[in-house]
Amino acid sequence: MAFTEFRTLDEKSLVEYIKATPGLSDKIGNNFDDLKIKEVGDGNLNFVYIVVSPAGSFVVKQAIPYVRCIGESWPLTKERAYFEALALREHGRLSPENVPEVYHFDRTMSLVGMRYLEPPHIILRKGLIAGIEYPLLAEHISDYMAKTLYHTSLLYRTTTEHKHDVAEFCGNVELCRLTEQVVFSDPYKVSDFNRCTSPYLDHDAEAVREDDILKLEVAELKSKFCERAQALVHGDLHTGSVMVTRESTQVIDPEFAFYGPMGFDIGAFIGNLILAFYAQDGHADQGNDRKTYKEWILRTIKETWSLFYKKFTALWDEHKDGSGEAYLPGIYNKPELHQLVQRKFMQDLFHDTLGFGAAKMIRRIVGVAHVEDFESITDASKRAQCERPALNLAKMLLKERRNFQSIDEVVSAIQQLQ
Amino acid sequence: MAFTEFRTLDEKSLVEYIKATPGLSDKIGNNFDDLKIKEVGDGNLNFVYIVVSPAGSFVVKQAIPYVRCIGESWPLTKERAYFEALALREHGRLSPENVPEVYHFDRTMSLVGMRYLEPPHIILRKGLIAGIEYPLLAEHISDYMAKTLYHTSLLYRTTTEHKHDVAEFCGNVELCRLTEQVVFSDPYKVSDFNRCTSPYLDHDAEAVREDDILKLEVAELKSKFCERAQALVHGDLHTGSVMVTRESTQVIDPEFAFYGPMGFDIGAFIGNLILAFYAQDGHADQGNDRKTYKEWILRTIKETWSLFYKKFTALWDEHKDGSGEAYLPGIYNKPELHQLVQRKFMQDLFHDTLGFGAAKMIRRIVGVAHVEDFESITDASKRAQCERPALNLAKMLLKERRNFQSIDEVVSAIQQLQ
Repeated sequence: MAFTEFRTLDEKSLVEYIKATPGLSDKIGNNFDDLKIKEVGDGNLNFVYIVVSPAGSFVVKQAIPYVRCIGESWPLTKERAYFEALALREHGRLSPENVPEVYHFDRTMSLVGMRYLEPPHIILRKGLIAGIEYPLLAEHISDYMAKTLYHTSLLYRTTTEHKHDVAEFCGNVELCRLTEQVVFSDPYKVSDFNRCTSPYLDHDAEAVREDDILKLEVAELKSKFCERAQALVHGDLHTGSVMVTRESTQVIDPEFAFYGPMGFDIGAFIGNLILAFYAQDGHADQGNDRKTYKEWILRTIKETWSLFYKKFTALWDEHKDGSGEAYLPGIYNKPELHQLVQRKFMQDLFHDTLGFGAAKMIRRIVGVAHVEDFESITDASKRAQCERPALNLAKMLLKERRNFQSIDEVVSAIQQLQ
Repeated sequence: MAFTEFRTLDEKSLVEYIKATPGLSDKIGNNFDDLKIKEVGDGNLNFVYIVVSPAGSFVVKQAIPYVRCIGESWPLTKERAYFEALALREHGRLSPENVPEVYHFDRTMSLVGMRYLEPPHIILRKGLIAGIEYPLLAEHISDYMAKTLYHTSLLYRTTTEHKHDVAEFCGNVELCRLTEQVVFSDPYKVSDFNRCTSPYLDHDAEAVREDDILKLEVAELKSKFCERAQALVHGDLHTGSVMVTRESTQVIDPEFAFYGPMGFDIGAFIGNLILAFYAQDGHADQGNDRKTYKEWILRTIKETWSLFYKKFTALWDEHKDGSGEAYLPGIYNKPELHQLVQRKFMQDLFHDTLGFGAAKMIRRIVGVAHVEDFESITDASKRAQCERPALNLAKMLLKERRNFQSIDEVVSAIQQLQ
């Protein structure tokens, strides 16, 4: 059986595909007798198969030309698999400890074969709902973000390298447009796609649509998202795109990757931690009031930014005499000036982070795609009580982000707004 | 004679080329008996031939793979001709009254054939040095800038169209890098390329290199230049890229075109008018003290921005229900919100304009390429007296641009700093 043109695989044809693909069949020692295949796609966009044999294992992810959970009525280019594979390889090269290895990519079939993240790896969001602490999470994710964002920016690279890659990732425009719609547009207008915990949050959702200052500010963030090619961002770095154990943090699913503002990734991660924080009261029960866990989440938010700041500026310091073209050594190497431009850069990035993080929070409460953190709270009234302060915090952060000087101030604001 | 691979033409081989090219030979009625050919390249980068016959005329511009005035030791891709032709066609489509028509483009030969801008068209810079008023200049150039910048931005277009063209123009990276070097880098460091009116301005040039706040601010502008794909900018819109008569304004030479910040074009034009203003005292003589002319330049600066503002926002208003994806009608069409976002957008653009304009002024006084406005003042001491206040104004504008609310305030600052 040849695979010279695209078709959607099933468990049977996948076996044929693996047999015809040495890069995959080698991983299982070419032994097809004890092969176990399990489809585990979360159902939103793609098919995901876990392939395990006694000799080895891998995951196969295949993109199909529409949104899987909706059907062919919502087409979505399967070329996203190409950009996902590109980003996995580039980010994996830069941060190998935190990105699963790609074994195989087939553009015709829109298919990536990669490392299977074996148990006890679970999706971070599920761990946050279960109240599990991950002591190395902030350390790992800040490492991943610092390395991937720094090394794909003009702080590290020449304009020639940069524009070459910017052009390549312009091809991922369909996925960018999807983000523009669901993050920066739909929540701020009447849209059939929007939903919220009704009737409790109906007025809150309406207030978002009526808030002129909020809409002015979200326009500025959208413009940065669309126009500012600052670094190769993951593009969807929420807590559902991270798999964890206590010792391991693995970033997956970068199919939204493109050259955009760094704050979009950092904000996505921190914003989703804040959502997890506000959801905890909905998960509390007699056995666990989640108070200690909420403290851990706040600590993790603080450490994520603080460690990111430390690691990112350390990379910058280390390579300041390198070939990066943003701040040439001949101009910026005087120590006090180097510190001045660095502080300015990091402050701007902090404000971008808060703005994008807030936008990502808002869309998860009044937009089309909600998060399991809240959705798993079955009592709608209780869920709304968790969502409302999260929404209010996000609105305030988005509008007043430039007044925040430190992550400590953000954490204080969260503590006060519960 | 076939032209299947690149070679530099001379007047003789150009005739053969025209004979082999119907798109050009048709323009002169295929009559080669009374053909007049004259090479008029200003000597910096390219060869430019004027071709005139009794039946018609055109201009041929050929790029060569190095900087003509320096030689093969400074290579520069001849592919710039491709981007120049692309930009001439796109800007010509959007603003046909102010861009010469392209008759023919040959990528192999890096050669553009286009309308000959017949006398009395002259380069605007030369007209400004001669003290000639152009009553329609502000009207025309604001029209050109409003139409080209608006229609190539996300205010008018979809993200899909936008990213497609952004990717294409990423290919013009060599010319972008040249700008980065000569505008945003060299003037702020010791560089063999830099020169200034020595010894008079030696300390002024050194002060530029020692000014930490100036260097902090120019880094922010450089980052916008490198990363922000806001619209298809001309990329070199100084007064040497405009040909004029009293009735006509024609923008030429967009070989630096790319998707960048709108303020880079508007600033280039206004910054060069300010340079022309400060040069006038050096051109004054007993017959003409240039006072009236200086008033005209200031009026033209005011009108350029005011008319640009009016035309640009009029286009925005006209198409606000169109397919532009920056401000969706469903979110921003409430009149007071529409005005709020528009005012914010235009204020940011105004500050970008002042910043980029100031950077372009500075580089013309302490960088590699100076302007004839000053260079034609033969007395070095007198020239320095003209250049110094221009440099001081530019430094102030670059550092304090965000404090300016209107073009009137800028003109007042110019009047006070003479």
